[in-house]
Amino acid sequence: MSIKFEVLKKSKKTKARLGKLLTPHGVIDTPVFMPVGTKATVKAMTPGELEKLKVNIILSNSYHLYLKPGHTLIAKAGGLHKFMGWNGSILTDSGGFQIFSLGKLNKISDEGVFFNSHIDGSKHFVDPEKAMEIQMALGSDIAMAFDECSPYPVGRYQVETAAQRTLQWAKRCKEVHNSPKQSLFGIVQGGAYKDLRIENARKLVALDFPGYAIGGLSVGEPKLLMYEVLDYTVPCLPQEKPRYLMGVGAPQSILEGVIRGVDMFDCVLPTRNARNGSLFTSSGKISITNTKYKDDLTPLDSECHCYTCKNFTKAYLRHLYMSKEILSSILGTIHNLHFMAELMKNIRLALQEDRILEYKEEFLSKFLV
Amino acid sequence: MSIKFEVLKKSKKTKARLGKLLTPHGVIDTPVFMPVGTKATVKAMTPGELEKLKVNIILSNSYHLYLKPGHTLIAKAGGLHKFMGWNGSILTDSGGFQIFSLGKLNKISDEGVFFNSHIDGSKHFVDPEKAMEIQMALGSDIAMAFDECSPYPVGRYQVETAAQRTLQWAKRCKEVHNSPKQSLFGIVQGGAYKDLRIENARKLVALDFPGYAIGGLSVGEPKLLMYEVLDYTVPCLPQEKPRYLMGVGAPQSILEGVIRGVDMFDCVLPTRNARNGSLFTSSGKISITNTKYKDDLTPLDSECHCYTCKNFTKAYLRHLYMSKEILSSILGTIHNLHFMAELMKNIRLALQEDRILEYKEEFLSKFLV
Repeated sequence: MSIKFEVLKKSKKTKARLGKLLTPHGVIDTPVFMPVGTKATVKAMTPGELEKLKVNIILSNSYHLYLKPGHTLIAKAGGLHKFMGWNGSILTDSGGFQIFSLGKLNKISDEGVFFNSHIDGSKHFVDPEKAMEIQMALGSDIAMAFDECSPYPVGRYQVETAAQRTLQWAKRCKEVHNSPKQSLFGIVQGGAYKDLRIENARKLVALDFPGYAIGGLSVGEPKLLMYEVLDYTVPCLPQEKPRYLMGVGAPQSILEGVIRGVDMFDCVLPTRNARNGSLFTSSGKISITNTKYKDDLTPLDSECHCYTCKNFTKAYLRHLYMSKEILSSILGTIHNLHFMAELMKNIRLALQEDRILEYKEEFLSKFLV
Repeated sequence: MSIKFEVLKKSKKTKARLGKLLTPHGVIDTPVFMPVGTKATVKAMTPGELEKLKVNIILSNSYHLYLKPGHTLIAKAGGLHKFMGWNGSILTDSGGFQIFSLGKLNKISDEGVFFNSHIDGSKHFVDPEKAMEIQMALGSDIAMAFDECSPYPVGRYQVETAAQRTLQWAKRCKEVHNSPKQSLFGIVQGGAYKDLRIENARKLVALDFPGYAIGGLSVGEPKLLMYEVLDYTVPCLPQEKPRYLMGVGAPQSILEGVIRGVDMFDCVLPTRNARNGSLFTSSGKISITNTKYKDDLTPLDSECHCYTCKNFTKAYLRHLYMSKEILSSILGTIHNLHFMAELMKNIRLALQEDRILEYKEEFLSKFLV
């Protein structure tokens, strides 16, 4: 089976929806936040720990796995789920974004992309067909079409070329994608140009993908501009299919995305922040290495019920971070991922009760960054 | 209450014993291996993970905790157990060994030791009284007397001076130690000089400590010499009290120590090895980063029932180590600590069945390093 998606309830005053996404690896309540497991591991977490945190879908990166340990090895292992011991759902990106942001680009044409690995400089060529081969080998539940993501700011001509190329590549991806248990999502590009976004979305929707991502956002543009793009892009996408805002994970942005009709989010932010000692609390982000926490024998967040907050003090956490102990990354990641899971649970509860705008105000009145 | 120790069974052909050690934080079956939690954390492990691994006592280092975050903060937090969220037993060392091996020594006299911190060069003075103050503040279940550990090789005069000083310091420790819930162990020194060891042990035993450690071993001397020292030192210690061989953790050495009548062991080896990719298996130590494991889709040890071996392959583990993922340290440590727990469980079972020599042969015939 491929995915099934159902909208359970629509918000009256906003475009937000409560939904249910069924994949070959389980049921996912939406809106959902997907933690990132770049190299076949959500950093500092065992799969068992992720399950305890109620994570049921993660994102993994095709670019990294293609380079190391190689998608053919992962296929030999029985696919990514089996290789990394993860029984939940997996969405893989196409590798496009990383090739453009991490790889050393050699040549990009309508055909595909020649680039050098950021690890050892080795030469590679990835085109839509290769991106499908890689993701089919990984065996993720959801694969993404190969796209060209424009940076910000950049001129209209370049954005238009990239958006048109992304559309052509989406067609080629669809033609070669052939994996009954994997669903292929298309990605809308078009930068912050309203007419380009709308045209790109409409043409992509005509290709009839089982789900759609909004790409090319959270790449440096102002937040308000991102929300504006969502305002006119999301309505072009079909109501009955899941919508995924790529690379967005800040709590405020997730709330704004939900209100504009987005169902799925991913970002390295909660896990990367955790390793750097930037921890989410109900009153905002704190930097736990700050000297003021040296003797603070209270929990990180007295309102939080995660393992970290139930068992340790700020002073202990600060000591672990200052000593660069591995446990700092473990406890910080547990806390930040629990925070995200609670946020999404509360968002879904608010949608159930049709009070998402009220919840947003409540949350933001306390969460001061 | 302080500790209680009971010898449950004695081996007929060897000096080995099966025992039970009761501390204010629980019951410990002996012989026992204590993982090291240097800076108030067993590296890469949550306390919850340690419990799952059936660890019930850990060692923590006074020297490190005195420097950072400071024993006064830990006392304010309610002691080390509470500070680090660990409900099992804790043994703290005296700091002596680390002052001599890590600190920059300024002056050592009968009075105490002036040294500079290895972290920031700051000046410190620790004497037996200070070592007791630190450990009483930490509130460990078992504290160690402040000792001078001689390096190897070194001349007789230096070893003799250090052993005599250790004895004087042991007296001073005993005089000021005043903590009803903490038991203070003495440490036998004397290097590899039989007469010095025996004299030192006898005089220390006369001071009547609730337990005794054999110090100054595993500091570079040949293994056979260490076993020889145990041969003549352990018989000087009282039968009814626990005996602890400091800094020893190699499986072979633990077996040899058990046979010579040792009840307790500690070492960073299993946890440090784990972080470096050196993993224990029933057929010996392997280096998981070796290229030959690149495509190896079998478990690390097919005989092992730990979380790591039940869920992951050598190829996946190698990928994690090569990518320097935090999960490599977590999974490696889970495995190596499980291996140690199994080894100790099997040793105790063999003692119960009075077949410790047979078990040693069985184990060593397979465990090729």
